[in-house]
Amino acid sequence: MNMEDWNHSRLTRQLAFLTEIDKIKTVLRRTLLLDGSRRENDAEHSWHIALMAAVLMEHADEPKPDLPRVMTMLLVHDLVEIDAGDTFAYDFQGLNDKAAKEQRAADRIFGLLPGDQAETFRGLWREFEDGATPEAKYAAALDRMQPVIHNYFTEGHSWQKYGVNRSQVLKRLEPVREASATLWAFMNELVRRAVDKGYLKGDPETEGE
Amino acid sequence: MNMEDWNHSRLTRQLAFLTEIDKIKTVLRRTLLLDGSRRENDAEHSWHIALMAAVLMEHADEPKPDLPRVMTMLLVHDLVEIDAGDTFAYDFQGLNDKAAKEQRAADRIFGLLPGDQAETFRGLWREFEDGATPEAKYAAALDRMQPVIHNYFTEGHSWQKYGVNRSQVLKRLEPVREASATLWAFMNELVRRAVDKGYLKGDPETEGE
Repeated sequence: MNMEDWNHSRLTRQLAFLTEIDKIKTVLRRTLLLDGSRRENDAEHSWHIALMAAVLMEHADEPKPDLPRVMTMLLVHDLVEIDAGDTFAYDFQGLNDKAAKEQRAADRIFGLLPGDQAETFRGLWREFEDGATPEAKYAAALDRMQPVIHNYFTEGHSWQKYGVNRSQVLKRLEPVREASATLWAFMNELVRRAVDKGYLKGDPETEGE
Repeated sequence: MNMEDWNHSRLTRQLAFLTEIDKIKTVLRRTLLLDGSRRENDAEHSWHIALMAAVLMEHADEPKPDLPRVMTMLLVHDLVEIDAGDTFAYDFQGLNDKAAKEQRAADRIFGLLPGDQAETFRGLWREFEDGATPEAKYAAALDRMQPVIHNYFTEGHSWQKYGVNRSQVLKRLEPVREASATLWAFMNELVRRAVDKGYLKGDPETEGE
């Protein structure tokens, strides 16, 4: 195969992937935009946290994650939801078969790319899911922080709507503790204020203390 | 100032920036989503082309641009439109005072960040606008390619709506020529097919040839 055909064939597969992933723009999350006008979608969310990764990098604990790897991971981390849909963080039934559905989605969607790239990008998604590397931990921290910040600034919209309480939110935020002492302290303070302001329910067992 | 206050103050400014930029999710472009359901917004567009940068990197001409720099540039390149709005590529009147409006917007929006970061991110935006570095050229190529691809796959939606013709599209695509011989050949082929299929008007002077 000459260089031109090779390029053409790779480019055709790359374009198939790049047009397929447009669908993520219609996968809606439970979180509202900060102006409260509508729910945000996965593309917007991914854009936001990839840029958060760059802006907040100085707060990541040692060993410092590799920022470009984190950003790429965040840009692709939700692509599986094109097939598997968004499972609400506090939907414990839906979370049961999430892993299998998402693995099939990853195989199909990243599989549109040329083989070497399919492996690279599916690997980044897998790394994010496994949460073991400094990059995956920092990425997970941002992925968890962003909806909490959005909920705070929309006066607890989805917390209220789905009856979420303080300890559930703190549990969701656990990856922040593993990624950054500074961001963990900050998010705890934000959650404390959210309860104070009545945006978020306190824990059933500690309420009224 | 001790470390904790310093972090707190920086984090407060970073959060001010990160919440302000949520507004980009409501800046609509003229291009439709590929399913034709609605216009896409700047956050979605920025997400898409940052990921395109990673996927299509092998096609960038020498000297190879630094990919992380390109991705960060693309994630912030449209933030000025929060204040300045999206100017349609083929609105030549609107393009007149675009530069001044966008400079004021860059000063305000990036100015929300701590000083060193304001300078870094505003610098990336400026570099994109100036279009002189390999990174800015490759970034511009992707920024111009994406709406053309979307127009092609939505049967020329905004080309038809605004009466755009072939030579106008090719002129918009000029940055692709400067960034990648492979992508330039590909986009020319796409434009040729778009005219063939009747999605895009031929040039007035060559029509009927």
